[in-house]
Amino acid sequence: MADDKLGGAGLRGQSAGETALCTVGRTGAGLTYRGYGIDDLAEAATFEEVAYLLLCGELPDATQLAAYRQKLKGLRGLPAPLREILERIPATAHPMDVMRTGCSTLGNLEPEGDFANQHAAADRLIGVLPSIINYWYRYSHDGVRVDVDTDEDSVAGHFLATLKGEPPNDLFRRVLDVSLILYAEHEFNASTFTARVCASTLSDIHSCVTGAIGSLRGPLHGGANEAAMELIDRFDSPAAAVESVRGMLARKEVVMGFGHAIYRESDPRNAIIKGWAERLAGLPGLPGLPGLPGKAGDESVYAISCAIEKLMWDEKRLFANADFFHASAYRSMGIPTKLFTPIFVCARISGWTAHVMEQRANNRIIRPSADYIGSEPRDFPALAER
Amino acid sequence: MADDKLGGAGLRGQSAGETALCTVGRTGAGLTYRGYGIDDLAEAATFEEVAYLLLCGELPDATQLAAYRQKLKGLRGLPAPLREILERIPATAHPMDVMRTGCSTLGNLEPEGDFANQHAAADRLIGVLPSIINYWYRYSHDGVRVDVDTDEDSVAGHFLATLKGEPPNDLFRRVLDVSLILYAEHEFNASTFTARVCASTLSDIHSCVTGAIGSLRGPLHGGANEAAMELIDRFDSPAAAVESVRGMLARKEVVMGFGHAIYRESDPRNAIIKGWAERLAGLPGLPGLPGLPGKAGDESVYAISCAIEKLMWDEKRLFANADFFHASAYRSMGIPTKLFTPIFVCARISGWTAHVMEQRANNRIIRPSADYIGSEPRDFPALAER
Repeated sequence: MADDKLGGAGLRGQSAGETALCTVGRTGAGLTYRGYGIDDLAEAATFEEVAYLLLCGELPDATQLAAYRQKLKGLRGLPAPLREILERIPATAHPMDVMRTGCSTLGNLEPEGDFANQHAAADRLIGVLPSIINYWYRYSHDGVRVDVDTDEDSVAGHFLATLKGEPPNDLFRRVLDVSLILYAEHEFNASTFTARVCASTLSDIHSCVTGAIGSLRGPLHGGANEAAMELIDRFDSPAAAVESVRGMLARKEVVMGFGHAIYRESDPRNAIIKGWAERLAGLPGLPGLPGLPGKAGDESVYAISCAIEKLMWDEKRLFANADFFHASAYRSMGIPTKLFTPIFVCARISGWTAHVMEQRANNRIIRPSADYIGSEPRDFPALAER
Repeated sequence: MADDKLGGAGLRGQSAGETALCTVGRTGAGLTYRGYGIDDLAEAATFEEVAYLLLCGELPDATQLAAYRQKLKGLRGLPAPLREILERIPATAHPMDVMRTGCSTLGNLEPEGDFANQHAAADRLIGVLPSIINYWYRYSHDGVRVDVDTDEDSVAGHFLATLKGEPPNDLFRRVLDVSLILYAEHEFNASTFTARVCASTLSDIHSCVTGAIGSLRGPLHGGANEAAMELIDRFDSPAAAVESVRGMLARKEVVMGFGHAIYRESDPRNAIIKGWAERLAGLPGLPGLPGLPGKAGDESVYAISCAIEKLMWDEKRLFANADFFHASAYRSMGIPTKLFTPIFVCARISGWTAHVMEQRANNRIIRPSADYIGSEPRDFPALAER
């Protein structure tokens, strides 16, 4: 069947195509988006610049950026049927199921149609995904129909404003903005590859993104920041965390938020989000959300995170990846744990849609073969003879 | 980046994993499901037996089969929120977008939860997908809320009964049953591979199937039977078809429904569905659906199909694939063209869910690499300097 046997399972180390969007783990370069290093982007760019860079190929100038921000601002509204559909999804639903269903529904109401509309469809998704998740979250959890046409200039501000029902402070806006930049793009990860396989059938962009959301939902992929939070929440102090995690390691349990499939020595995103998590942790009395469990604004989350990070390095030489200190940072901003992965969607939508466009521009249907390990040909027995 | 360069784009000929479910195009065997040849299955089995075979590993005995039919029969109902959501999707929507959204919604309302529930979730999807598409179709097109709890014993009968609002005849039941068998499984095609990539993140079964539906939606994949129908519908006679398709070939236009990515000499499913299409075409005055365009029960569709098939072989040595005579068969049964690909979903759900289970049983996250063709590392320019 297959002409070539793979070296490893999961297509690891196998090229499944070409990309101009991203490098991951190249020696000396860490992570780059279209050639720009993640440190520079997280330091000096905004998420809207990064999305424009990924989707259009180059950074916008000041005029282009202002126009792009204005455009995205006009793409936040929810059509009435979509609001009504979101209101019928119970509070017990997995938020990633809501994201997946919201994106899929949008494909019914506002189909992409001709691929000439792909940029418009991608921008619409960047604009509307925060509205989708927060409209559902606030309605199902608090009975509130939030106004999703906020005055916020950025996706980050829009997310926080619709979640909390009031304008966020500038520090929170910037931290979430940086977080969106860090999560915007990461080459042929499983969700992006899902989007490209779907795109290779020449399906529509909503199908590609819906599929990608479904893959990001998996605990081996996008769920790591939530899992890190759940781990940290078990502990009252750094000492208790160290003792307990040491026990986990002895029992060979997996500690989420450490190591990476591609990076070997460190995750270049970790130092960046850790720095912001530290700054947030030092602020006194940060506001939480009503009903949020536990420790919003409590610097112990950051301290516990640092203790676990040190232990994992000392004992296992495993480094914290992008997800681990996101838990501390998001918690300090009063973001419910169950919305961590949906935020990842609000960021990665830029990379996914850029990959869909790239796949379409040089397409062949992605249709691998398989090694057959099943029964040899056999005769079909009549029902009475089985 | 990548350790191994691919021989061809689209992972063609590359093994992306192991399967015991299916062989495609092996010399002398054509198409097998768990070792049973497609000719035998289409001759002697029913779709429910095939689904059981794929999902459970062996054919059911008479008692098991009766129990499985009864079980599926009890899994057709639509929860109220899902009905309300389907009623909010307009008649103009793409039916595959409706299938995708219906499956995704079900994941909110009836989440799989622990993977121990995977068989129950798969059976539920087999039972309910025909209800989803036909409830939406009849409501959006005719304003009718169909009763989806029919007395039909088979998925095929259930599909036809909910579409037409009355019990179908036995011939139609059997033809659709055979069609579902032919479409049930086909190794690592693009939609199945989408499901497996998603499953490899350990995401839920609804995410895997939702993604697969999105990939099947693509015109390079599941849309071929609809495209064949649209082609055939252009012609009033075999002679007109031959003249026009000859022109298409001269202009190097693609004629949908011919050739295959894996099969080289013939598609073993073609002779089977062609035989049924011929039989249906010979029946006088078959009933169509109200509002159905054109030629229901008109044997010219079959005759035109045969003329095109002969021309394609004579001129190009291209064989009709599984999709081509499905157009004639479905039309003769009064099935609207836009529901052709959703029927494919109602069949392939058995293969997709079996592949999800197989991936989970021996999993590594599917995360390939890419060949980088983008910009070398570059300095980040300030906004004012662009």
